[in-house]
Amino acid sequence: MPYSPELGGLIYQVASQARREGGISFAGGYPDPALFDVEGLREAFNGVFDSSIRVALSYGEREGYAPLRERLAAFSSTESRQVQAEEVVITNGGQQGIEMAVRTLVKPGDVVFTDSPTFSTALQTIHLAGAKFVNVAADADGVDPEDLEAKLQHHRPKLLYVVPSYSNPAGSLLTRERRLRVLQLAVQYDFIVLEDDPYGHIWFDEPSPPKLLSLTVEVPGAAERLIHVSSLSKLVAPGLRVGWVIPPESLRRPMVLTKQSTDIHSALPTQHALVKYWDSGRLGPHVERVRTSYRGRAMEMDAGLRTHAADVAQFHRPRGGMFVWVRVPACADTRDLLAAARAEKVYFVPGVAFYPEEPDASTMRLSFATTSAEQMDDGMRRLGRAIKAYVSATRALA
Amino acid sequence: MPYSPELGGLIYQVASQARREGGISFAGGYPDPALFDVEGLREAFNGVFDSSIRVALSYGEREGYAPLRERLAAFSSTESRQVQAEEVVITNGGQQGIEMAVRTLVKPGDVVFTDSPTFSTALQTIHLAGAKFVNVAADADGVDPEDLEAKLQHHRPKLLYVVPSYSNPAGSLLTRERRLRVLQLAVQYDFIVLEDDPYGHIWFDEPSPPKLLSLTVEVPGAAERLIHVSSLSKLVAPGLRVGWVIPPESLRRPMVLTKQSTDIHSALPTQHALVKYWDSGRLGPHVERVRTSYRGRAMEMDAGLRTHAADVAQFHRPRGGMFVWVRVPACADTRDLLAAARAEKVYFVPGVAFYPEEPDASTMRLSFATTSAEQMDDGMRRLGRAIKAYVSATRALA
Repeated sequence: MPYSPELGGLIYQVASQARREGGISFAGGYPDPALFDVEGLREAFNGVFDSSIRVALSYGEREGYAPLRERLAAFSSTESRQVQAEEVVITNGGQQGIEMAVRTLVKPGDVVFTDSPTFSTALQTIHLAGAKFVNVAADADGVDPEDLEAKLQHHRPKLLYVVPSYSNPAGSLLTRERRLRVLQLAVQYDFIVLEDDPYGHIWFDEPSPPKLLSLTVEVPGAAERLIHVSSLSKLVAPGLRVGWVIPPESLRRPMVLTKQSTDIHSALPTQHALVKYWDSGRLGPHVERVRTSYRGRAMEMDAGLRTHAADVAQFHRPRGGMFVWVRVPACADTRDLLAAARAEKVYFVPGVAFYPEEPDASTMRLSFATTSAEQMDDGMRRLGRAIKAYVSATRALA
Repeated sequence: MPYSPELGGLIYQVASQARREGGISFAGGYPDPALFDVEGLREAFNGVFDSSIRVALSYGEREGYAPLRERLAAFSSTESRQVQAEEVVITNGGQQGIEMAVRTLVKPGDVVFTDSPTFSTALQTIHLAGAKFVNVAADADGVDPEDLEAKLQHHRPKLLYVVPSYSNPAGSLLTRERRLRVLQLAVQYDFIVLEDDPYGHIWFDEPSPPKLLSLTVEVPGAAERLIHVSSLSKLVAPGLRVGWVIPPESLRRPMVLTKQSTDIHSALPTQHALVKYWDSGRLGPHVERVRTSYRGRAMEMDAGLRTHAADVAQFHRPRGGMFVWVRVPACADTRDLLAAARAEKVYFVPGVAFYPEEPDASTMRLSFATTSAEQMDDGMRRLGRAIKAYVSATRALA
């Protein structure tokens, strides 16, 4: 089955069905609006109006507002890999970082590797660039380096796209060993790794392994082959559309030129407000609140699945992020399960929306981010019932 | 001389030189920050925090915030051509509208026509798309339909890019007759006209002729061949990065897909604030203030040029926008004039920055938008002296 951007449209269809029909939706791919730090952001915007507003309303630098670049550089730094403000280019959410990387590196007909399943809007961007997808097998520990190396015997990719930490949709977490191996292969076979890291700070029991950006210091030659993309969409708010990209030095100029020719620069009042927000000291405690809240919901979802669907569903205990990836062995295509779920007023995204090539269509993505811990058991009960109703109906037909 | 994106870089170089060195700069291409309606915008943002902030911080529709699309549709409508909200797609400034059009329509090797001289960042976008430029001759009345028709005998363009009203850099104003002729030729030769209209509301003595978008109703077949792009950068503030594009129906879906894969959608708090601003009734009087202020500066610049440089410079009385285009017949390349101007502490952008093909390098762009009417005579006196100093120095050498 070749990739079709229509499949990504499933996400919007189910989400808007859920909105119209009420019920409990696990179809969202967005943070919970109830958790936004509205008061902190109000103060931040007011602070901008009290100080730098005429600068914030004027044209600015195409790389973004320098004080925000400084803070994002510090935020992205680790002891072994200090990021400088000049390395950071501010984008409209993480998506624009992905798009700038793809547009700078990928010509029509080029091969792009992605983990599988993977983020559907990234697939769409890569598809629009005219690339050929090759998917690399992945499991709960992320992309499989053995399969990656096997695929490298037959293809010369320009880019490997990966979400190493708490991926969307699979919730997978790439191990430290695999991270190092991916970087080694990038050097050996000379391709660029595009690390998309919007969820890295949303860890539950322990922090994720170091990001690929940090691990480049351990692999000679890797620093020149790693583009790091991240975003404040999941940590502060997606409507602000603020992300950033850290390209290797050799790619910074062409990527900035792409940014400039796309929209000159990103909106400035928001960038100024985020600096105020940062300096208010509220970001750290806010991220902590998000993490605690999502962890509670995730654990309830996991418990609910074990209670109500253990015999019909396969899944892993979530370690961070927003998603649980569920396989229903008795269902060849979870799109067929949507009607039974609607009857129970629960919603999910069928797995086919997330595959670059041959999908495992017996999968689904569940988001725990927007359902309260209290509602979770009821939601999982209904989902379990829906799956069982579907399974017995299809057995009756057979 | 083939096009080089480095030439557009001249604009930034001279502008930052001017900032460092003080003096009077006519090199800017931006609105005057002193004119921003800061209080109106502060109220608008506060209004969002009091009402729809959680929606504004969430993900939204890729086409933009529906209430703002409604207001922009009304703003873009004329009696003969009513624009519907569904036709409007919100972008990060006008630049992203240009980019979406180019990326949707232009493949590497395709031919794109532009007026000449023209907007340098549009040139950069078209260049990055791998297009071949063909420039169409233009004068103070805009692009010349005879030259356009002559060029159509030899080329099959995908796109004609034009700024019909008070163009950047030339300040030209395309006549009604020429507008209709351009649309007729688009139908006859089957190409798309990309109308970039950021300055149309900044007219001085009388409104500009109807936009091409409105005139499509008079030319059968033209509606399907016109993409209209506009922006609030010059009317409200460029740092907000809010523009919009009105594509023909057949191009709406692919252009929206391009937008989604670039950055999902534009920042929402700003879009919500602009709806509040619109509904406060302050936009109309604000645009009137901008118009009156720029008109005063433009007339002083024109008078100053006549007083201090009539014998060494050719120019037209400005009818709107932000720019006067000056030709110095005695100077083969105005880049050579920059040193003499710096000695007088005045700054301009050399004309070479604005040409897709062979430049008329004896030209320069002067912006009157950011210099007070009181300073203008002094500025023009210094510029006149700089030109005369340069001319007598080169004569002495010859």
